[in-house]
Amino acid sequence: MPELLSSHTNPLVKQIRALQQRKGRDETGLFLVEGIHHVGEAIEASWSIETLVYAPDQLTSEFARSLVDSQSLRGVRCVAFTPELFRSITEKDNPQGILAVIRQRHLGLDDILPKQLYFGAALVSPQDPGNVGTILRSLDGAGADGLFLLDGGVDPYHPSSIRASMGTIFWKNLVQTSFEEFVKWARENGYQLVGSSAHAKIDYRAFKHGEQPLILVLGNEQKGLSQDQMWACDINLSIAMKGRVSSLNLAVAAGILMYSIFDK
Amino acid sequence: MPELLSSHTNPLVKQIRALQQRKGRDETGLFLVEGIHHVGEAIEASWSIETLVYAPDQLTSEFARSLVDSQSLRGVRCVAFTPELFRSITEKDNPQGILAVIRQRHLGLDDILPKQLYFGAALVSPQDPGNVGTILRSLDGAGADGLFLLDGGVDPYHPSSIRASMGTIFWKNLVQTSFEEFVKWARENGYQLVGSSAHAKIDYRAFKHGEQPLILVLGNEQKGLSQDQMWACDINLSIAMKGRVSSLNLAVAAGILMYSIFDK
Repeated sequence: MPELLSSHTNPLVKQIRALQQRKGRDETGLFLVEGIHHVGEAIEASWSIETLVYAPDQLTSEFARSLVDSQSLRGVRCVAFTPELFRSITEKDNPQGILAVIRQRHLGLDDILPKQLYFGAALVSPQDPGNVGTILRSLDGAGADGLFLLDGGVDPYHPSSIRASMGTIFWKNLVQTSFEEFVKWARENGYQLVGSSAHAKIDYRAFKHGEQPLILVLGNEQKGLSQDQMWACDINLSIAMKGRVSSLNLAVAAGILMYSIFDK
Repeated sequence: MPELLSSHTNPLVKQIRALQQRKGRDETGLFLVEGIHHVGEAIEASWSIETLVYAPDQLTSEFARSLVDSQSLRGVRCVAFTPELFRSITEKDNPQGILAVIRQRHLGLDDILPKQLYFGAALVSPQDPGNVGTILRSLDGAGADGLFLLDGGVDPYHPSSIRASMGTIFWKNLVQTSFEEFVKWARENGYQLVGSSAHAKIDYRAFKHGEQPLILVLGNEQKGLSQDQMWACDINLSIAMKGRVSSLNLAVAAGILMYSIFDK
């Protein structure tokens, strides 16, 4: 049985608290991943684990214990916490007793080859980290490959984004860049850009995808795509709104469009 | 200019705080609605407003001021708060300065006629109030009429559900009952029940809707539909999962199925 860390003022505890905030993540390039499934996916996808924190008493799953053992053998720092200390750093109601500090990955447009990324989605300045994670999950389900986050917006390494992604964030190409650079790159690499807007004239079900690699482009929760952004797309599609609301939740709209366009 | 309430120990402030918790809502049959759009929708849909709270300094919109004036003329208790007191009760980062205490509506199965409810959705014990509200919003967008919440689960009058519904909760039939009673009622009233499950053999795109009124039935976030619940449905449909995750977010799955089945 390893010695259990119990001090709330330990530097590692301070680091974890700092990483719960965007400032801490931006300054260090690290982020937090919690829970057996998510930590397991990060390890399987070969992300760089800086520190593995666990609460031995809470960690009852055989699989979770094997994760800690194998990472420890590989030289990753593994630190055991008392149940009290673990509860003080967790954001979950029923913590599973495992949390990892992981290094972020930052891909550039040059890292993406159209052959590797046939279907993708781009979000312009999304405001809700849960939406970003949920869209990664749907993108995975629909068989697409990458997500572009354009012109800022929320941090995809926010705990709510990681959680909502159900671990798919560790397997998908994720690129953060400007709308302008993205469009230039897409043109040069032969992508068809399909915008989504309540103001578009073409119903999404009328769209027939041809041979080109394709990226679906969605505006943010409040404003949607601007007129200029719609012009930058090859075609813009709308989803019929038959009731009182003028739009769907961003992640729902993305799910409907991705399944309709990608899942042939 | 009305006199501004500033006391944090005022009974109304205590009532509002109590209504932020489920216990307070269950005990009183009241709930909170915040923001100009949402309060406006509740009033337009003729829900019973018990109290309207507003912060005169923050309430800059002409429409919002007219809501307060007209409710006041109709005899609704309207209470002006200081900006500080209003901020202390709001759950929003950028409060709009208006909040209503409203009476819940509880419909029973007998209140619903198939002629009034041609397309609907049923959720078995959903756990995330945001999902309930988001599904109401999608249901409205897809042109459906009602939502059935079966065998408990979250409170649809939770602030996150209200917020995510974008006000559609005030316009849709919402029935809370047991799975068993629901199925009995659906049989007697000629509904086709369409279940959704990762274990179903039929792809949702293969489904053709006939003439019957139809209700889509979805299991909860963790467990999906049980085998018995699938048997109780006339047909069960699956959404293809092409990547690593075995399911979609509940609200995304509901959105894809509702738009595919209802939106003809």
